[in-house]
Amino acid sequence: GHYVVIGQGSSVPSCVNELISAISSGDAEPKPIVVVFPNEEERKGIELPEEVEVLIGDPTNPETLERAHIREASHVILALEDDSKSVFSTLMIKRMSKARVLVEALKAESVELLKQAGADRVILSRSFAGRLLASSVFEPEVVDVIDDLTTSLGRYDISVLLRRDLWGSTYIEALRKLHEENGYFLLGYYTDKPVLNPPLDERIPEGAKLVVIRPAGGGGVNPKKSI
Amino acid sequence: GHYVVIGQGSSVPSCVNELISAISSGDAEPKPIVVVFPNEEERKGIELPEEVEVLIGDPTNPETLERAHIREASHVILALEDDSKSVFSTLMIKRMSKARVLVEALKAESVELLKQAGADRVILSRSFAGRLLASSVFEPEVVDVIDDLTTSLGRYDISVLLRRDLWGSTYIEALRKLHEENGYFLLGYYTDKPVLNPPLDERIPEGAKLVVIRPAGGGGVNPKKSI
Ligand SMILES: [Ca+2]
Ligand SMILES: [Ca+2]
Repeated sequence: GHYVVIGQGSSVPSCVNELISAISSGDAEPKPIVVVFPNEEERKGIELPEEVEVLIGDPTNPETLERAHIREASHVILALEDDSKSVFSTLMIKRMSKARVLVEALKAESVELLKQAGADRVILSRSFAGRLLASSVFEPEVVDVIDDLTTSLGRYDISVLLRRDLWGSTYIEALRKLHEENGYFLLGYYTDKPVLNPPLDERIPEGAKLVVIRPAGGGGVNPKKSI
Repeated sequence: GHYVVIGQGSSVPSCVNELISAISSGDAEPKPIVVVFPNEEERKGIELPEEVEVLIGDPTNPETLERAHIREASHVILALEDDSKSVFSTLMIKRMSKARVLVEALKAESVELLKQAGADRVILSRSFAGRLLASSVFEPEVVDVIDDLTTSLGRYDISVLLRRDLWGSTYIEALRKLHEENGYFLLGYYTDKPVLNPPLDERIPEGAKLVVIRPAGGGGVNPKKSI
């Protein structure tokens, strides 16, 4: 399996850099990254690390997808500037491959269509921007925190851990333990959805993953591989 | 003073809804909201709450800005689909008004130009999307957490508080106190930048604001107004 990123504009370098940084910190599985630009123009405008393989081709053309070996890909990320092309490509990729398909939508109307086409996750990019612009009005410090937490750069990352040894511990016990032993900060746990900030004496349920904030770059006193 | 949101596409409703929800929870100052769409077409595509005043006009035309009473605005948010228009409008607004200007950029190249034009904050929307797409590959649970934390909807919000009574307390004391008395979760503090996850016995410095996670909707056992 490999990662395929198909797209144009500033989503592409931010996605690729984030993937590479997650691979080098051990958070993401090390696999080759293939980037597909719709045309030569787009490629010129974007700087990518050397280890990334670059292709040029129409993402709605199955021949392009074949060249990117979409059949063997584990994950395909679509970040195009035309939602109708993203819907079309999603349908095609889902027919050709078992890859998870993660798609950027530019218009709110496209989100449901993309899910219907088989997208495993849809990120409505401008909707995030709108929220953050509003937060900049009334709590600019929070935007700084979120800016840091959403990238593996900066000083802090949110991460999830599997720590079977902490199932059954109370939240405050687990918080102290993770803080002292790993330098991690326990936000809460994740079963089918996130539960943050539970009562201090609540016990971590069996099967839960732990949601933590940790120093950026996979650090911490005794880092464990996050999952 | 009032809030002016000038823009088009999905950033506009997400920004306006976030502002309204922050006003109703007491996080943002209650002020009128004026939305300026560049044309009638854009207005039709977007549903806004009734209390919002809507204008149509070219955002690069000073006459449009006069109609929005830009001179008296406290904050102007620009979320256009053309960065060169955003640069032009930013320059013009900064000449006409003392408002804080918060701008969405679509291209990475525009960020520095917008700052030079006087923008107080620039959000590169697709860069957030790119990071979140990458995170969806290796830790989808984290994307759920961030999705919740970046909107006042959902179950949790990040917020900043001024709590002079906790200056000088150790981090673990302040954490326990906020948790037990307010149902808040202390992430760390903010002086000129965020310091999350400090050592448990580190003292909160004088002048610091506290960065917390709290139940959404301004809740908590005994909510204090965040600043
Ligand atoms: Ca970070
Ligand atoms: Ca929330």
